[in-house]
Amino acid sequence: MTDNFFEKTLAAREISQIPGMLEFDIPVHGDNRGWFKENFQKEKMMPLGFPESFFAEEKLQNNVSFSRKNVLRGLHAEPWDKYISVADGGSVLGAWVDLREGENFGHVYQTVIDASKGIFVPRGVANGFQVLSDTVSYSYLVNDYWALELKPKYAFVNYADPTLGIKWEDVENAEVSEADKNHPLLKDVKALKADEL
Amino acid sequence: MTDNFFEKTLAAREISQIPGMLEFDIPVHGDNRGWFKENFQKEKMMPLGFPESFFAEEKLQNNVSFSRKNVLRGLHAEPWDKYISVADGGSVLGAWVDLREGENFGHVYQTVIDASKGIFVPRGVANGFQVLSDTVSYSYLVNDYWALELKPKYAFVNYADPTLGIKWEDVENAEVSEADKNHPLLKDVKALKADEL
Ligand SMILES: Cc1cn([C@H]2C[C@H](O)[C@@H](COP(=O)(O)OP(=O)(O)O[C@H]3O[C@H](CO)[C@@H](O)[C@H](O)[C@H]3O)O2)c(=O)[nH]c1=O
Ligand SMILES: Cc1cn([C@H]2C[C@H](O)[C@@H](COP(=O)(O)OP(=O)(O)O[C@H]3O[C@H](CO)[C@@H](O)[C@H](O)[C@H]3O)O2)c(=O)[nH]c1=O
Repeated sequence: MTDNFFEKTLAAREISQIPGMLEFDIPVHGDNRGWFKENFQKEKMMPLGFPESFFAEEKLQNNVSFSRKNVLRGLHAEPWDKYISVADGGSVLGAWVDLREGENFGHVYQTVIDASKGIFVPRGVANGFQVLSDTVSYSYLVNDYWALELKPKYAFVNYADPTLGIKWEDVENAEVSEADKNHPLLKDVKALKADEL
Repeated sequence: MTDNFFEKTLAAREISQIPGMLEFDIPVHGDNRGWFKENFQKEKMMPLGFPESFFAEEKLQNNVSFSRKNVLRGLHAEPWDKYISVADGGSVLGAWVDLREGENFGHVYQTVIDASKGIFVPRGVANGFQVLSDTVSYSYLVNDYWALELKPKYAFVNYADPTLGIKWEDVENAEVSEADKNHPLLKDVKALKADEL
């Protein structure tokens, strides 16, 4: 948990490094049983800037991954938007890299997220995280459907590329997938064009 | 975790006791990092019976509650549909009571759920669960917006009503909210009419 976990006021901030990216404060209500949060609430979040376009094609998928401490997943950019969050008492160091063609290509944002934060990641921005707690449940909404056959169309950048400047917690001991070990360095990534997204 | 946690085939079963209720098997993919699941995937689940009407009003809320062992939440029926699931390695004993007017009023279904199951609960069916693991993250999608002021319009039934016949794990030591202690017995619940839902 971050210092200030409970009873934040619902709010959204634009991430200046990566246009279209938003960071939400989520109110978490604690009591004798544990806690409760409205993790996503369309009617309250759209007026704060959550893009209506997220729902334009009426597609919806909710993914959940469960990971042990030091697991590092990423960095993956796909042709869909993501609204990501932590669904339990754990926390992750999240990192994002803009892989869209243009002046922001290669721009990075990183922050620690726990259940009291939500992050909107626009399509074409690579997403990744390292687990800081013993375990973590990481939950996200996307607006298009993944398929193994389409993987060649997704874009990836290597989490360990030093030019990104991401301050991972313990990158030597990171537990990663074989696929993630082999992603290209930023200098070898083909920027995603608007018409591919 | 239930015995058969990983790599189920995506499937849906109708719950005969409570019309409109569906139980999904969710494929969970394990690897060196933990696991991953498509917790909800509209395109794959609609052909299996997930009702298109869930999306008719284009409202969406995702709630997450985090609870300690023995916590018991419920039983609550609201004028919206719910798709519920477990988002971490924990498990709960779920219980549902039909509070809709008609021949199924008072019918009960109960089952243990972990991350490899998803339950669709139609509006007017009361929802509750008791935590079986040390902690649990419980996540659900709903298609209308809760408000404290509207609480008098929601329907509740007392989890401890023996006429329900729910076999809770340890009802004496259940950790519950003050509100949940004071809900009416089934015999005193006013059935929900179709036009209230
Ligand atoms: C993304 C995705 C994956 N899978 C399957 C394929 C594998 O059997 C298993 C894990 O897939 P991987 O591609 O290794 O998942 P992972 O490296 O964690 O990456 C995904 O999940 C991450 C969160 O866990 C996201 O941050 C990434 O954007 C996303 O690409 O789940 C699905 O069945 N559906 C999916 O949507
Ligand atoms: C349902 C709901 C609640 N709240 C607030 C009100 C309280 O401060 C806090 C907890 O609310 P309670 O009504 O005590 O939550 P709880 O007893 O867990 O019941 C809710 O959450 C349960 C799961 O935790 C569901 O099974 C129930 O259907 C749902 O009514 O969260 C919200 O801010 N938004 C909501 O949608």
